[in-house]
Amino acid sequence: MKVRDYECDVQGHVNNANYQHYFEVTRHEFLEHVGLNFYEMHKKGVDAVVSRVEIRYKVPLIGMDKFKCSIALEKRGVIYTFHQRIIRLSDNKLCAKAQVDVVNLIDGVLSQPVIFDEAFKAYL
Amino acid sequence: MKVRDYECDVQGHVNNANYQHYFEVTRHEFLEHVGLNFYEMHKKGVDAVVSRVEIRYKVPLIGMDKFKCSIALEKRGVIYTFHQRIIRLSDNKLCAKAQVDVVNLIDGVLSQPVIFDEAFKAYL
Amino acid sequence: MKVRDYECDVQGHVNNANYQHYFEVTRHEFLEHVGLNFYEMHKKGVDAVVSRVEIRYKVPLIGMDKFKCSIALEKRGVIYTFHQRIIRLSDNKLCAKAQVDVVNLIDGVLSQPVIFDEAFKAYL
Amino acid sequence: MKVRDYECDVQGHVNNANYQHYFEVTRHEFLEHVGLNFYEMHKKGVDAVVSRVEIRYKVPLIGMDKFKCSIALEKRGVIYTFHQRIIRLSDNKLCAKAQVDVVNLIDGVLSQPVIFDEAFKAYL
Repeated sequence: MKVRDYECDVQGHVNNANYQHYFEVTRHEFLEHVGLNFYEMHKKGVDAVVSRVEIRYKVPLIGMDKFKCSIALEKRGVIYTFHQRIIRLSDNKLCAKAQVDVVNLIDGVLSQPVIFDEAFKAYL
Repeated sequence: MKVRDYECDVQGHVNNANYQHYFEVTRHEFLEHVGLNFYEMHKKGVDAVVSRVEIRYKVPLIGMDKFKCSIALEKRGVIYTFHQRIIRLSDNKLCAKAQVDVVNLIDGVLSQPVIFDEAFKAYL
Repeated sequence: MKVRDYECDVQGHVNNANYQHYFEVTRHEFLEHVGLNFYEMHKKGVDAVVSRVEIRYKVPLIGMDKFKCSIALEKRGVIYTFHQRIIRLSDNKLCAKAQVDVVNLIDGVLSQPVIFDEAFKAYL
Repeated sequence: MKVRDYECDVQGHVNNANYQHYFEVTRHEFLEHVGLNFYEMHKKGVDAVVSRVEIRYKVPLIGMDKFKCSIALEKRGVIYTFHQRIIRLSDNKLCAKAQVDVVNLIDGVLSQPVIFDEAFKAYL
């Protein structure tokens, strides 16, 4: 991915909340990769909901920087934890890392993430 | 309203697209004021959809600036045109003005805006 | 480019203001392509400032849609007008088109866009 | 504050990253309240930088919801931790809570937050 200038604030850096967008985009790309579509699931009453996010900011990204965002998956009870990293491509520096806990709601009720267990099994 | 720092870009100014957000927020406040809720309408299949927007940028807003946003309504055929202005409170300067054309879709089909005619009649 | 889910609103469509972001990203990519960097220019006191934008919305983009965004350039006096289109890749539908007027400020003063004349000459 | 419709995603809920914006806006309001302006400080080379954020999401906010956002301050070494809560006004429900670690950079170098010590002393 590449930083968009409107994502930067007056300090010239990507605004902190936009990292959360990058992490989210990457998770949704991952969902699509394993055959799940966030919007289609929602229409069927199945929601992937973030219950907790922790982000550590290391090195700020600036306008037009290119970066990659990685995912490693861990399961703990009904929670899937996404361990994510944003790495700047120009020098391979770690810019931010996150732990994002995601739970599965079916018709609004916390549920066993059966649909995710099936889709994610190759990545655990 | 008041500018939020994250809405500013590296030039220190509010990013152009955020003016469109301010105009939209003001229209939705107006809808709520006349008894219509954007989200509730959508769930019933009634959507207010912007077909055209024209914005002229005059004086840039910067972080923490306070401003007001006005609306004047005009009806042309099936289109409601919202004439909107953003005025900075500190010196009453016109910062941006917009013409926003809104049409009414019912279940996705362009329709006579009967629900708006009723709700807006005191403001034409 | 590809729609990011967080760019969609409760109607399931990309929020209107985000189209302005797509158009802006494309212009900044174009600037970079011709050797100009928005942020670097700003630090030297040269700003490309949007004075007017007009967007016509045709067909809404939804989550994960892929699209391309085009630019055609026109010069009128001190104004460069970017004629831009967003085309959905799946069916080549025109989703939105824009006219964006950009002027050149040097140290905050409206100026002949000499730096742009030089950079854009192959595209007029 | 009040939720803006464009801050909601297709689930009808405020997008997770926007809570981070609400927390940030509240911190900047607090800075302004104690006589510090984020943008003015930046121009003098003094930056308040978030090094870590942890957010727990409890109850989702939806369009037009009104809410308040609180701050409690704690100092640990060179780090100021902002403990923040978002409470929905209609029923006093806790919607999200955050711990945000902020450090002080002077000309880009991690520094004793002397300027903050002075400004925040009444709130510790």
